[in-house]
Amino acid sequence: MLNYTHISDLSNLKDTIENAIELKADPFKNAELGKHKNLVMLFFNSSLRTRLSTEKAARQLGMHVSILNVNEAWELEFEDGTIMNAGSAEHVKDAARVISQYADIIAVRAFPNLKDKALDQSEYILNSFVKYATVPVVNMESATGHPLQSLADAITITEHHKEKRPKVVLSWAPHSKILPQAVPNSFVETMQLLDVDLTITHPTGYELNPEITKDTPIIYNQKEAVQNADFIYVKNWSTYEPYGKNINQDANWMMTKAKLGNAKFMHCLPIRRNLIATDEVLDHENSLIIEQANNRTFAAQIVLKQLLLNLNN
Amino acid sequence: MLNYTHISDLSNLKDTIENAIELKADPFKNAELGKHKNLVMLFFNSSLRTRLSTEKAARQLGMHVSILNVNEAWELEFEDGTIMNAGSAEHVKDAARVISQYADIIAVRAFPNLKDKALDQSEYILNSFVKYATVPVVNMESATGHPLQSLADAITITEHHKEKRPKVVLSWAPHSKILPQAVPNSFVETMQLLDVDLTITHPTGYELNPEITKDTPIIYNQKEAVQNADFIYVKNWSTYEPYGKNINQDANWMMTKAKLGNAKFMHCLPIRRNLIATDEVLDHENSLIIEQANNRTFAAQIVLKQLLLNLNN
Amino acid sequence: MLNYTHISDLSNLKDTIENAIELKADPFKNAELGKHKNLVMLFFNSSLRTRLSTEKAARQLGMHVSILNVNEAWELEFEDGTIMNAGSAEHVKDAARVISQYADIIAVRAFPNLKDKALDQSEYILNSFVKYATVPVVNMESATGHPLQSLADAITITEHHKEKRPKVVLSWAPHSKILPQAVPNSFVETMQLLDVDLTITHPTGYELNPEITKDTPIIYNQKEAVQNADFIYVKNWSTYEPYGKNINQDANWMMTKAKLGNAKFMHCLPIRRNLIATDEVLDHENSLIIEQANNRTFAAQIVLKQLLLNLNN
Repeated sequence: MLNYTHISDLSNLKDTIENAIELKADPFKNAELGKHKNLVMLFFNSSLRTRLSTEKAARQLGMHVSILNVNEAWELEFEDGTIMNAGSAEHVKDAARVISQYADIIAVRAFPNLKDKALDQSEYILNSFVKYATVPVVNMESATGHPLQSLADAITITEHHKEKRPKVVLSWAPHSKILPQAVPNSFVETMQLLDVDLTITHPTGYELNPEITKDTPIIYNQKEAVQNADFIYVKNWSTYEPYGKNINQDANWMMTKAKLGNAKFMHCLPIRRNLIATDEVLDHENSLIIEQANNRTFAAQIVLKQLLLNLNN
Repeated sequence: MLNYTHISDLSNLKDTIENAIELKADPFKNAELGKHKNLVMLFFNSSLRTRLSTEKAARQLGMHVSILNVNEAWELEFEDGTIMNAGSAEHVKDAARVISQYADIIAVRAFPNLKDKALDQSEYILNSFVKYATVPVVNMESATGHPLQSLADAITITEHHKEKRPKVVLSWAPHSKILPQAVPNSFVETMQLLDVDLTITHPTGYELNPEITKDTPIIYNQKEAVQNADFIYVKNWSTYEPYGKNINQDANWMMTKAKLGNAKFMHCLPIRRNLIATDEVLDHENSLIIEQANNRTFAAQIVLKQLLLNLNN
Repeated sequence: MLNYTHISDLSNLKDTIENAIELKADPFKNAELGKHKNLVMLFFNSSLRTRLSTEKAARQLGMHVSILNVNEAWELEFEDGTIMNAGSAEHVKDAARVISQYADIIAVRAFPNLKDKALDQSEYILNSFVKYATVPVVNMESATGHPLQSLADAITITEHHKEKRPKVVLSWAPHSKILPQAVPNSFVETMQLLDVDLTITHPTGYELNPEITKDTPIIYNQKEAVQNADFIYVKNWSTYEPYGKNINQDANWMMTKAKLGNAKFMHCLPIRRNLIATDEVLDHENSLIIEQANNRTFAAQIVLKQLLLNLNN
């Protein structure tokens, strides 16, 4: 693995999950692997879980961590060939090569603007770092994907499923703001790689990028979709086509205990209580949200471990 | 000790002070105690001394430190049962449980707003972390108390007093802004636990919470109050009743060398020179302000040490 | 060396450069030297290279690093004797002494305002820390100098020159903003100490402080100045007299491949592409900009190493 920008960068997802679960049982087993190595975490957007879990993961591998809120430095230029006489003070081409002098691995968080679909789909920030950095790049949530989250979700499902082939439902929920599709995109892509029965449910108009959902069944009736589910992953996202709209805030799509039944409840957090899901759901013993957050550490750690092993080769 | 939110959380203040003084003489004695343990420091408000001293203390115990300015992430919700469709993106119930996945100890700094007395007195931010976190919580200054500062003050007085029972005076001083009562509250509560002769002096109207001052004498004549004092702790605070007012900026309450006499001068810092006390007082050899700041490290270190020992049991 | 505020603080520049190059070959050679020592980095201004390279350098020496954006704390007072009843909450006299309790070395970045020449020339921020701190102070770019950058530049030239006495040209370039003279000042002062043939070229009116340039030749015709150059260091700066003006944005002063010839291209970064120099220059194999950035780590590391050795004596 040269970078971790997408779940498909893992050569073997199932092995990676198993290795993460082993790491979780003995998190300091590789405490010397990252000795004298530096992880530089670049935030174009704010973070709580990703920041703390990735920092913890790196340190459990013995790495040093430097954290930079890019917006506190200065605006980066991403266009090639421009005369840089306006706002941006440094080209990503130079910034990425420079940061590579100080980092053994660079992790980047850069959300979409949700206004210009082509721009967001181009993943110009993440991909610029991949292109120009001379060290491995880790995606800490980009415009269209959040593969550290979906790896943590896959670990959580692997730990908690009892069925041979669990039924997993991704259910849209209402929100007052316009949110990215990164989390549902990566969740779908990751589940498609596992031996699970995946169903997506959302109101009409909220179809995700069809190149991602492929032939995963979409059921527009939430009640029908969640029947006999073993895991229900609830998440809001804005529309993909037309892009970045919030066309529905129907509170009937909120997850309730009645709808949850005996399924395990999942969400990536942060979650707006009583909007996405009721307090009853979130505080129920079937809620896996805290365990998902915990597994963010081990998702990051197994990814960093693989990158470090590759560096040392 | 399960948490350190108040000086009374220490099972034995005098022993703690002695142990802190021993640690100060050999700060890396327990450099292995915090190995592989992580302190997450959460700042709702800015900090210089608390930030640097607590970080240093944790590292001297071998801990890793993660620092998060909460306001750079997003607004937390503290009300129970609300439909979270407004500004706040995450409930403290979830945030505290999540951060507990990444931390072995959580330290929180959250000032009062000084507008709503009941809200400030409820210590809703600090207490929410105490309630929901699944790891120990340390108070790095809350709405009504600053027990790391008062422990540092107690260490400083213990190191410098020559008298069997020193006379300690807490004297109000004028300020151009409206400041919390956290520092004087904790100072009074801490001095009440030590073998000192404590007197409080301030203009009428600046009485602290009577449940805190209890039967500690209050003398409204500053000159009379400071006579024969061994230690004079100067500090501004706003009124408790009515709440959060700045009713007096009388420069005559500023501490001068004439008033200080041979007493040692104390202040928690930051201090506004020539408003709270004259340059002459602050730069005098009897000023203990820098030593108080130095002792912040050992106050934090002895608290973290006790929490770590408890964790390991 | 007691502090590193200026290139002249190094007792022997050439030996320092040689030692830095040795460190670069074995960066963890002194990984125990800074054990249990803490570097506090204070930023009054934003930073990318300086922040990451100095942090990396300190850690390679085994130090802990604390980073504080001073503006996130509160305004410092620098005037003596004032009644502090306005904006500033803490006097640098106290802040510097307090931070010295938590730091073994303090590093400070504080840019000029470029409005008040006397104030900027006084280096009141950096010099206040030098005056009041009780531990060594490192200049991470001040109002008038950037000696960590110029040391990195000297290392880079030493590594890359083939000539016995290379011709080095400092060439002004246009910019849309008003920039400090810190980088060119330190570059000139550092080159004057080395066995190089230094020439300065800029439009009339951009003369640097004559007390710095001394008898270094200034040629106002860029084309003539760069002839047969081995190294061309390109940089914008604003006028020194009258102070802080941008009197010329003539694009003809941009560095092009034709002008560069076979010389090595240098710049401290961040650089505005196609304004200071063309893409062709920056992406050419003769461009040393990434190597200069890399050498920032070893410049900082050799300086910190010397300060630590001095501390331990």
